[in-house]
Amino acid sequence: MKEKEKKYNDFGLGEKPETDGYRAVNKDGSFNIVKTNIPFFEKLNFFHNLVTMSWSHFFLYILIGYFVINILFASIYVAIGVENLTGTSGNTLLQEFTEAFFFSAQTITTLGYGRVAPIGIPANIVAAIESMLGLLTFALATGLLYGRFSKSRTKIKYSDIGVIAPYLDINGFMIRVVNPQKNELLEVNADLSVSFCKKDSQLREFHNLELERDMVFFFPSVWTIVHPIDESSPLYQMTQKEFQERDVEFIVMLKAFDESSSQTLYSRSSYKANEIVWGAKFTYLGEHDDGKLNIDVSGLNKYEKYKLQ
Amino acid sequence: MKEKEKKYNDFGLGEKPETDGYRAVNKDGSFNIVKTNIPFFEKLNFFHNLVTMSWSHFFLYILIGYFVINILFASIYVAIGVENLTGTSGNTLLQEFTEAFFFSAQTITTLGYGRVAPIGIPANIVAAIESMLGLLTFALATGLLYGRFSKSRTKIKYSDIGVIAPYLDINGFMIRVVNPQKNELLEVNADLSVSFCKKDSQLREFHNLELERDMVFFFPSVWTIVHPIDESSPLYQMTQKEFQERDVEFIVMLKAFDESSSQTLYSRSSYKANEIVWGAKFTYLGEHDDGKLNIDVSGLNKYEKYKLQ
Amino acid sequence: MKEKEKKYNDFGLGEKPETDGYRAVNKDGSFNIVKTNIPFFEKLNFFHNLVTMSWSHFFLYILIGYFVINILFASIYVAIGVENLTGTSGNTLLQEFTEAFFFSAQTITTLGYGRVAPIGIPANIVAAIESMLGLLTFALATGLLYGRFSKSRTKIKYSDIGVIAPYLDINGFMIRVVNPQKNELLEVNADLSVSFCKKDSQLREFHNLELERDMVFFFPSVWTIVHPIDESSPLYQMTQKEFQERDVEFIVMLKAFDESSSQTLYSRSSYKANEIVWGAKFTYLGEHDDGKLNIDVSGLNKYEKYKLQ
Amino acid sequence: MKEKEKKYNDFGLGEKPETDGYRAVNKDGSFNIVKTNIPFFEKLNFFHNLVTMSWSHFFLYILIGYFVINILFASIYVAIGVENLTGTSGNTLLQEFTEAFFFSAQTITTLGYGRVAPIGIPANIVAAIESMLGLLTFALATGLLYGRFSKSRTKIKYSDIGVIAPYLDINGFMIRVVNPQKNELLEVNADLSVSFCKKDSQLREFHNLELERDMVFFFPSVWTIVHPIDESSPLYQMTQKEFQERDVEFIVMLKAFDESSSQTLYSRSSYKANEIVWGAKFTYLGEHDDGKLNIDVSGLNKYEKYKLQ
Repeated sequence: MKEKEKKYNDFGLGEKPETDGYRAVNKDGSFNIVKTNIPFFEKLNFFHNLVTMSWSHFFLYILIGYFVINILFASIYVAIGVENLTGTSGNTLLQEFTEAFFFSAQTITTLGYGRVAPIGIPANIVAAIESMLGLLTFALATGLLYGRFSKSRTKIKYSDIGVIAPYLDINGFMIRVVNPQKNELLEVNADLSVSFCKKDSQLREFHNLELERDMVFFFPSVWTIVHPIDESSPLYQMTQKEFQERDVEFIVMLKAFDESSSQTLYSRSSYKANEIVWGAKFTYLGEHDDGKLNIDVSGLNKYEKYKLQ
Repeated sequence: MKEKEKKYNDFGLGEKPETDGYRAVNKDGSFNIVKTNIPFFEKLNFFHNLVTMSWSHFFLYILIGYFVINILFASIYVAIGVENLTGTSGNTLLQEFTEAFFFSAQTITTLGYGRVAPIGIPANIVAAIESMLGLLTFALATGLLYGRFSKSRTKIKYSDIGVIAPYLDINGFMIRVVNPQKNELLEVNADLSVSFCKKDSQLREFHNLELERDMVFFFPSVWTIVHPIDESSPLYQMTQKEFQERDVEFIVMLKAFDESSSQTLYSRSSYKANEIVWGAKFTYLGEHDDGKLNIDVSGLNKYEKYKLQ
Repeated sequence: MKEKEKKYNDFGLGEKPETDGYRAVNKDGSFNIVKTNIPFFEKLNFFHNLVTMSWSHFFLYILIGYFVINILFASIYVAIGVENLTGTSGNTLLQEFTEAFFFSAQTITTLGYGRVAPIGIPANIVAAIESMLGLLTFALATGLLYGRFSKSRTKIKYSDIGVIAPYLDINGFMIRVVNPQKNELLEVNADLSVSFCKKDSQLREFHNLELERDMVFFFPSVWTIVHPIDESSPLYQMTQKEFQERDVEFIVMLKAFDESSSQTLYSRSSYKANEIVWGAKFTYLGEHDDGKLNIDVSGLNKYEKYKLQ
Repeated sequence: MKEKEKKYNDFGLGEKPETDGYRAVNKDGSFNIVKTNIPFFEKLNFFHNLVTMSWSHFFLYILIGYFVINILFASIYVAIGVENLTGTSGNTLLQEFTEAFFFSAQTITTLGYGRVAPIGIPANIVAAIESMLGLLTFALATGLLYGRFSKSRTKIKYSDIGVIAPYLDINGFMIRVVNPQKNELLEVNADLSVSFCKKDSQLREFHNLELERDMVFFFPSVWTIVHPIDESSPLYQMTQKEFQERDVEFIVMLKAFDESSSQTLYSRSSYKANEIVWGAKFTYLGEHDDGKLNIDVSGLNKYEKYKLQ
């Protein structure tokens, strides 16, 4: 994050932010923005959707797709006449359809037992097309699965609460983040901003906050991000009551290099006034044992009461 | 974009730009440059072409390729003699060819019903080669499909027009961009340049323009890029008539990180004199509703008339 | 590595490092940190594990998975009744199970000889599901294999020992690194830190060390990283005995662009007091021969005794 | 390329460069360095080799591999006894082997016609293993093909010769580069260095050369890289004869973002004294035609004689 950027005093989240308890960034890092009237073809992102949807949806879609496509081809085979498929023995239309359905499944997966096989030109043409379609579809599935798995799944976890804690001889605003996975995050940059209403106004002002430390080279476990509330801080002498009344929203952004996926990772979260504990310090989580440093990541939100300065 | 770069006064688009209404960059960001006499093998980029061509062309090529390769192998099987394929019953050459064609399709997709199967060494050799070839081809298709889908499809949309609008107590040149997709763009950098003819000359001069803000960390929806026309601006006191006569061309470049594909994205567009509206301001598109900010992206080009300063 | 980062005086490795002979970074670059109480689903990283595990484990898992899944489906076919599989001839349950097992293998791989083939709806449904599952599984295997192979395998090798050697008219701390592979590493940045106990204390202090040169554009072979021990160095006038007593730990980090994989590569190692040779210089490894420079990379750890200054 | 790097006065190419007409960097950008005594397993990079070898070698290896593996499995089937394969009719060992060979090919490609099919446990086990092995192998081939194709194939072309040409009111050293492909290169950075023997010495000195312009944002066609030989240049007042005697070597490095592959691209080349033409200027290659700028890239090496200043 460059020096130049820091001077900007809004989050780039729209041009006229108003104050109605609006939360610009949700806890999970998404934005409270809805885009409307997007042209259909620009909104559409087939691959993106299939890569980001949940696994259960993904498999459901595949199953449904597989079922539908076999229904479709079975209908074609029945229309052509199942007498063009050797080895079929169906008498009723339903039996014929069932035979054709399973023949279709054997064809699209290129299984091809051959107990049932096409004879004659029409059935053979359909089978030739179906088998190629099958290969292309599963080629696509291969890409999708790779896309799903290779996406960096590293999720930085943010403490649910921020704290106002004593820091050196002043106070500080602190949040805590943890990297719960095994893979390393490197060159982790942090950026902390705050917005709140101007005095006696519905309009908001935006500030970038100085950090005790805005980058760690290694991030193997836990990092407490600290904004010292000194004279130069826009939070200087603000009280807990003012935090509520002026509807503060802290936005924290992290940028890191994920060693396991060789990808750059962006992450963000936010803290509103009611998610901030006054006069508390995060509990230290480390414990030296047998030449190792044990970090209990489940204690991310643990804090102890401290008297403020 | 580094400080150093800014001082350069051309776009790197050829050494002797002349002024004949020439447009250096098209609206879609492509360059008005044709490279000739490229050696054949350097021009060729098989994979690149197959990944960037349209979907309809892509499937057409695959279908044609599938058809041609089966014709080819069918000819070989017929040449060897279809008596080397069990289960064939063709009498005429055409019937034999048809049988061989479908056998080839069943072989190259590794479907292998087995109703028709090779016997004897020559037919078996051809079938063994064909099936391996088929697997490699569909391996390639897998890669191509993945390459096509995984390419960042994010397209930043530029307003069709730029405006000269009042800005603070001066005027400014403004364009507006929108991210129409669901995925987030982060650390978006903008760079704006202009070129126009020197006074009473056919030669062009180039200028990099200062921006009110040249980067936004988040770009969830709409961003208005503003160049304030103050005394230091090369556009200072230029009139609408001069814009036409001196044949101005604005070139805007954006660079962003696309979170969904973890790729860096470059984008550019241009504005000629007749694409600039004087005395107009872009209409604000946001609307707060139910704790959400609604952005109507279809209003990208909407503006209202304003008196200039 | 930015100027700003350099001023930080710890490694970001926990908040209260204590001195009990604790080694923060192991020789192989891993951290001596154990994270406990990670929620199960956050710890889990199926793809990551399958991509990073050893080849022998990888193939073992695949074999076991293949075996188990066939056992499973064989059981289903037996439950349905092998009379629904044509061509089976088993009399005992074991024989039936064996036939079903191999039929399952032929189905999941989409081999489908057809000597054994399903008839009737239940067996056909199971076979249709199994073949699709097989394709998806092998689609996944394709992605895994690609993920395994495409991972940058470039391993920078660090000398086992560091040396304190004469350097110009003072002494220097030196380590040596080698790029043993054929591919080029470009824009290699080095960062060297040291931590040791404060005088008469169990608490540690951390220092970033100035390097004679902290980046090379090319890294085709060998690079000696040198920290000159001048008056400004925290190591100034420290003796070999103090190195032991104050439990020094040097941490070196490298960042490079790997041309063959187009990926950024991070690497790190550490040196404790007993891995440092006092009064020694690394032996030069190059030899000009026939217009080529030969570098004997096996001599990475070779040194010659030198009198210190 | 950072300011800091520029001050370094060698190329990072070994510690004691000697002057025996040695060329550090070849025209194609490779280094004249041979690494010896690399431990076998570190040298080995199976995937890297298969991805970077020529297409003819690649297909040859695949064909040989396919042939060898089928020979292997055929031997196993013969050892088990071809009577365990239904439909085989071979009498002699050769005939049996041939049948087994083709059965193996049908199995490893998962073709499975079924005319020949395994019966009994041993043959079935081998076939089950072979078909799974086949799928894994072709999964690997898929990855390899994708790896081969997706590698950025963009090759920046360097002029064969550099020229010493008049530049403003002094002279300059110039080389010319061209991007012969259709895809765009963006943010192209150039770095030019020179090394030559110290006066009356066999030892070399290294200099980084100032460029008229060290980056272009767009690189759609041709770029002439210019080092002005002013008083501050290490080449100031050096003659053509000195260039020869002091054995100059210019090394040029380019770094660019390849838009089509979303990858960063590094490239380099070198110029020795006999590849430099004194008193010549590169011929301008552009021609405006029909609103387009035509660039004749085949004229990359064209120059005209000019009198030096």
